[in-house]
Amino acid sequence: MACSNKDPCRKEPTCPPNCSYVSNPYLETMEEDVLYHFDLGTKTHNLHAMFGDVKHGMGIPSISIMLHELIKLLYHAKCTDVIAFRIGTSGGIGLHPGTVVISKVSVDACFQPHFEQNVMGTIKLYSTELNEGLVQELLTCSKETNQFDTIIGTTLCTSDFYEGQARLDGAFCNYTYEDKMKYLKRAYDAGVRNIEMESSIFAAMCNRSGLPGAVVCVTLLDRLQGDQIESSHEVLAEYQERPQKLVGCYIKKKFCKM
Amino acid sequence: MACSNKDPCRKEPTCPPNCSYVSNPYLETMEEDVLYHFDLGTKTHNLHAMFGDVKHGMGIPSISIMLHELIKLLYHAKCTDVIAFRIGTSGGIGLHPGTVVISKVSVDACFQPHFEQNVMGTIKLYSTELNEGLVQELLTCSKETNQFDTIIGTTLCTSDFYEGQARLDGAFCNYTYEDKMKYLKRAYDAGVRNIEMESSIFAAMCNRSGLPGAVVCVTLLDRLQGDQIESSHEVLAEYQERPQKLVGCYIKKKFCKM
Repeated sequence: MACSNKDPCRKEPTCPPNCSYVSNPYLETMEEDVLYHFDLGTKTHNLHAMFGDVKHGMGIPSISIMLHELIKLLYHAKCTDVIAFRIGTSGGIGLHPGTVVISKVSVDACFQPHFEQNVMGTIKLYSTELNEGLVQELLTCSKETNQFDTIIGTTLCTSDFYEGQARLDGAFCNYTYEDKMKYLKRAYDAGVRNIEMESSIFAAMCNRSGLPGAVVCVTLLDRLQGDQIESSHEVLAEYQERPQKLVGCYIKKKFCKM
Repeated sequence: MACSNKDPCRKEPTCPPNCSYVSNPYLETMEEDVLYHFDLGTKTHNLHAMFGDVKHGMGIPSISIMLHELIKLLYHAKCTDVIAFRIGTSGGIGLHPGTVVISKVSVDACFQPHFEQNVMGTIKLYSTELNEGLVQELLTCSKETNQFDTIIGTTLCTSDFYEGQARLDGAFCNYTYEDKMKYLKRAYDAGVRNIEMESSIFAAMCNRSGLPGAVVCVTLLDRLQGDQIESSHEVLAEYQERPQKLVGCYIKKKFCKM
């Protein structure tokens, strides 16, 4: 369904439901749709009035559930021209701690640029490339802000923080320091500059829904130097603000031209 | 390392570190071990004094990180004779809502009894059978409590709440109502009685660490009847107490014989 309302500063969206974000014919047939994990429903809440003017950012562990319900919320609330950001922290590879990485693509443990999903016993593969224009616009912002190092890189997304990221400090470790270093160097050679745990499903769901999405994460340590985070609480707190600052700069620039 | 201290009611554990829970030779060589997600460290906290008498239960989304750090915490705190419980909620298959399921095994989307983990590009398979004795003891408790229906069943563990569980109410749905019902009936025929999202890694890590573990989840709905939870808030709140009641009964019976 096309929508001609392109003004992001409107108070009251006036366009019809923009179906392009969701692709589920059953939604229209449901008497009520309860977004269970948000405790919201289409009968009990006026989602259009509550969220119609929202442009969401996010960074949470259960990002798959969140994105399903967020994408449905955008549909019920008739949001248009939304951009999604996953901001957060990560482990770096070969970077000074505090460097911000804008992901061009998220790769799996074998450095493949897709997300694998098992639906009823069948494996589906979804592209995890991120929006190229958005990556470049964010890099431009970082140059204008000029407060910290920012690079474009490939992001490794794992389903485990310890063994999945070749750490030596987990409860289990059946490999050696040399195995770890070999894997991290292979990752570096494949273009990987940071490691986190949400970007692949984020990228896949952005691609599936047509939402432009960006992943902007600060690195808290260089995994080639160790596994544990050694910076002080104050330093880490400042690092964690960097992705917010960068995305904040982008949002201001993009949406607040008055 | 063997440990002869078998009294769970001690105030101060007196045995040497019980290494049987962790299997990572690097832990002994580290000057400090920071359990990052708990904000605890072996230099800044006396973990033995703080947690030496703990018998943990749990049920959280990032259960893999939690279990790594919990298992290391048990090691640093020199805990012995620990039993782990994953209690929580689930979707049922062919059961009245409110039925409690004690899992005998956790299976993946293809109904296989293992957890697949990618470590540095190599797939490892871990058994997801749960402790048989514990399953039977919990069933006995439920008969003695006799407050709600409790069964032993296979639990399907998925990595996605919507498509991974064949729901029709996600943001994406590329299959039909008939596909969904066919899959859920195949699951039922394979012994599956409930679906949740943590049991496989829980079972795998319990098996790897030698921790006896149990999964006790209440079913909030019958997925053969629908996808959305329709019970009232009060009814759901009462359902959610059931696994706690059952496990509480077990703990009282087992550890508080005075």
